[in-house]
Amino acid sequence: MNPSHPINAVILAGGSGTRFWPLSREAYPKQMLQIVGEDSLLRETIKRIHGFVPPKNIWIVTTEDKAQDIRLHLETLGPLSKEIQFINEPLGRNTAPAIGLAAICLNHLFPESIMVVLPSDHAIPDTMKFLSDLRLAIQGAQKDYLITFGIKPIRPETGYGYIKIAEFPKKKMKGLLKVDRFFEKPDLKTAKKYLSHGGYFWNSGIFVFKTSKILTEIQNHLPSLYDALKKMECGPIVSNGLDKSPIPKSAIRNPKWATLYANVEPISIDYGIMERSRDVMMVPATFKWSDLGSWVALDEVIDKDKNGNILKGNTVDIGSQNSTVIASKRLVATIGLKNMVVVDTPDATLVTPKERAQEVKKVVETLKQNNREEHLIHKTVERPWGSYTVLEKGEGYKIKRVVLKPKARLSLQLHRRRSEHWVVVSGTAKVTREDQVYLVHTNESTFIPIHTKHRLENPGEAPLQIIEVQNGDYVEEDDIERFSDDYGRPITQ
Amino acid sequence: MNPSHPINAVILAGGSGTRFWPLSREAYPKQMLQIVGEDSLLRETIKRIHGFVPPKNIWIVTTEDKAQDIRLHLETLGPLSKEIQFINEPLGRNTAPAIGLAAICLNHLFPESIMVVLPSDHAIPDTMKFLSDLRLAIQGAQKDYLITFGIKPIRPETGYGYIKIAEFPKKKMKGLLKVDRFFEKPDLKTAKKYLSHGGYFWNSGIFVFKTSKILTEIQNHLPSLYDALKKMECGPIVSNGLDKSPIPKSAIRNPKWATLYANVEPISIDYGIMERSRDVMMVPATFKWSDLGSWVALDEVIDKDKNGNILKGNTVDIGSQNSTVIASKRLVATIGLKNMVVVDTPDATLVTPKERAQEVKKVVETLKQNNREEHLIHKTVERPWGSYTVLEKGEGYKIKRVVLKPKARLSLQLHRRRSEHWVVVSGTAKVTREDQVYLVHTNESTFIPIHTKHRLENPGEAPLQIIEVQNGDYVEEDDIERFSDDYGRPITQ
Repeated sequence: MNPSHPINAVILAGGSGTRFWPLSREAYPKQMLQIVGEDSLLRETIKRIHGFVPPKNIWIVTTEDKAQDIRLHLETLGPLSKEIQFINEPLGRNTAPAIGLAAICLNHLFPESIMVVLPSDHAIPDTMKFLSDLRLAIQGAQKDYLITFGIKPIRPETGYGYIKIAEFPKKKMKGLLKVDRFFEKPDLKTAKKYLSHGGYFWNSGIFVFKTSKILTEIQNHLPSLYDALKKMECGPIVSNGLDKSPIPKSAIRNPKWATLYANVEPISIDYGIMERSRDVMMVPATFKWSDLGSWVALDEVIDKDKNGNILKGNTVDIGSQNSTVIASKRLVATIGLKNMVVVDTPDATLVTPKERAQEVKKVVETLKQNNREEHLIHKTVERPWGSYTVLEKGEGYKIKRVVLKPKARLSLQLHRRRSEHWVVVSGTAKVTREDQVYLVHTNESTFIPIHTKHRLENPGEAPLQIIEVQNGDYVEEDDIERFSDDYGRPITQ
Repeated sequence: MNPSHPINAVILAGGSGTRFWPLSREAYPKQMLQIVGEDSLLRETIKRIHGFVPPKNIWIVTTEDKAQDIRLHLETLGPLSKEIQFINEPLGRNTAPAIGLAAICLNHLFPESIMVVLPSDHAIPDTMKFLSDLRLAIQGAQKDYLITFGIKPIRPETGYGYIKIAEFPKKKMKGLLKVDRFFEKPDLKTAKKYLSHGGYFWNSGIFVFKTSKILTEIQNHLPSLYDALKKMECGPIVSNGLDKSPIPKSAIRNPKWATLYANVEPISIDYGIMERSRDVMMVPATFKWSDLGSWVALDEVIDKDKNGNILKGNTVDIGSQNSTVIASKRLVATIGLKNMVVVDTPDATLVTPKERAQEVKKVVETLKQNNREEHLIHKTVERPWGSYTVLEKGEGYKIKRVVLKPKARLSLQLHRRRSEHWVVVSGTAKVTREDQVYLVHTNESTFIPIHTKHRLENPGEAPLQIIEVQNGDYVEEDDIERFSDDYGRPITQ
């Protein structure tokens, strides 16, 4: 493209996404799920744009608390993942501040550049068509338009916002349509009207504009946000030595800024800017798209069997129709379901008619109120060094399967209220126990007494798998003192 | 009651009951489930009759392969359970042969006695009313009638057989009604006709008669069964020394008899005798009753909440109606279900509309065809010495929680293809490993190498709980050589 307008892709990955509970959790949001296509939604989003812009021009905007999990999640992308950069919000304030923050940073680094704003949790099966539409959009952005992507509606959907195009546009541009107005999610009657009237499109949430242009629009329409952003000005990215080290751990980490950012109005880019700007043009998308706003949205992008069912994992079905059953290893047997969704995970199962799938929010709300943890984490928890799965928790004990990546090691640590037995079931472990360092091979075991400094390490080239039996009057995760850690996690002493 | 007619209760417990899958399994049939009331259906059946007849006059009729599991299951009844006697069928041949076998044995032991035949898997919430009706029935049986119990229908149920009472009975007896005919499970139209016509009752499957009378009827209506039974004549119960030892391990264990019994026609007592006999009277039951023929039948005997739901275990529900959700420890979240059944167990979940709950048979059939084991056993398997639960099985390893009853011990055994690590999480273990015998306390562990003779024992007064990590290329239950066993299980060498 035009070298005078370098292009950056800004991927919005701050969502916590309870709408795909129980598969998504607070610590494992929707963009990390592999539900459509061959990889997670976030990684697919990166793959889709990778090649069109170089990895060092791909930016992930997310909140500080999610950044490490997301970086871990990207590791399977290989070397590419190391070049992707993060812009960390101190906390989530909806899309206008997130895009504003990215714009102020990128405008500083690349004046007059173009930014492509991509949600991280949408499904777009056809990359070629998407990139072809994107080229059109960039041409519009170069002419100082705010470009959106509109999806031609195929039914009176009430779950999306709508874009109305102008019937008699004064400004015209090849392949682009002038936008008249944006509309919020309509009721069914209104959605039907939009569909029959024509000229209405679904709002995909994908945007392209110059950083300078969006900042001008923010200055005009959200002046207080603009003021806050100006005070931030993204100095640290540069002063943190971005040019030397392409991966600042956190592009934004400044207590003063956290307060500034916390006080900006949480508002979406649609309401805050798009609805108010006069310079909005729309690309009528030629690609298939779903925002995967709920379990029902899977229907749009996953192929169904001849009875209209989507059956994944360990399922046995007798005569269901138009139903979605997502199982894991455990067996889910279904009989004669009609328009139902069943989702099974190791610690929680959801059963709902499709028409009420949106109410999964209420389930998550109930779990929060009851201080449960089924909405927070999965039984398997990803860590920088690998993962662990809680197999069972009983009175005075807890059993975990722990998997270490090759060459990875846990922190040097100590527990005040539990001892641990480790049985190696595959690979070889290098164990540090106070002053001793020794190897434990497959089918051997070792014991870490209470109050004993220890470290588990995988010196090998294959994953190390151990079964850990914890014994003690208290076997929770917060009984840990860290003395040294490879992953920059807080050290207790 | 009349001492000249001693009374024996015969509890039919041979069913495998797949209709309550996934809660019931082949190795854990419906009568062992605690789904209604405070104890399992079988134990409730015993408690209901206990006091009316002494424990030594309670007989369990079941098949040999189920007898040990059932005896274990009865242990929680305390000393009473040791007096209950078993009549073991070589294999299941439906109710007429089972009742015939019991009759021939009991007639031999107690000539002119009365037998009360009770299914082991029905729910009868009101014991007082049941016993009062039973007294009436016994009076009829003393007069050489075959007595049945009829339940007044409250809806046109197609899942039960029906009894039609005679409109102009020639023989009359206080409180008893003369039976005209038995009918098989009707279609809906016929069931509606029965209901509006009146004079039709549900057939409860509970019967009372003299042993001599039922044998005469079998001789008349099922002569070949009678011939087979005559050859069996129940000698072994006596020759096994019943009078000395009240608990013959297996009342019937004779290869010749197994062949005889295998060749009798499998037929129900209803079709084989009751429909054909002229001497059948019915007690119109005053008690509530359900045969628990399917998940839907729970509705008849479990109190529902104000929305018509039955919610058990770890559930979160948002606005369901007339639905049954049976959960265990894992969370089951349901939204807006109507007339549905959801049953969750550690290894399998069932979701079905109530109207199709009978089709759970088809699920079980599918599992059988695919050589799965979710229809055979639970993750937790009861053993004479306690129980084990498979927590996880992976490539080359398997993890179990093993619980030993106080003073119990496993067999002296050896595995050819796996080693075992044991971590004691509560109690103290006495371990035999080849020539060594040693104690392993809570929070200690030990290792049993491959090819090593070993035995695990609980010397204490409280349950012993260990976590066992098995390592090997083959970690199935059949890799076991037993050298000595406290529970009479087959010794390999």
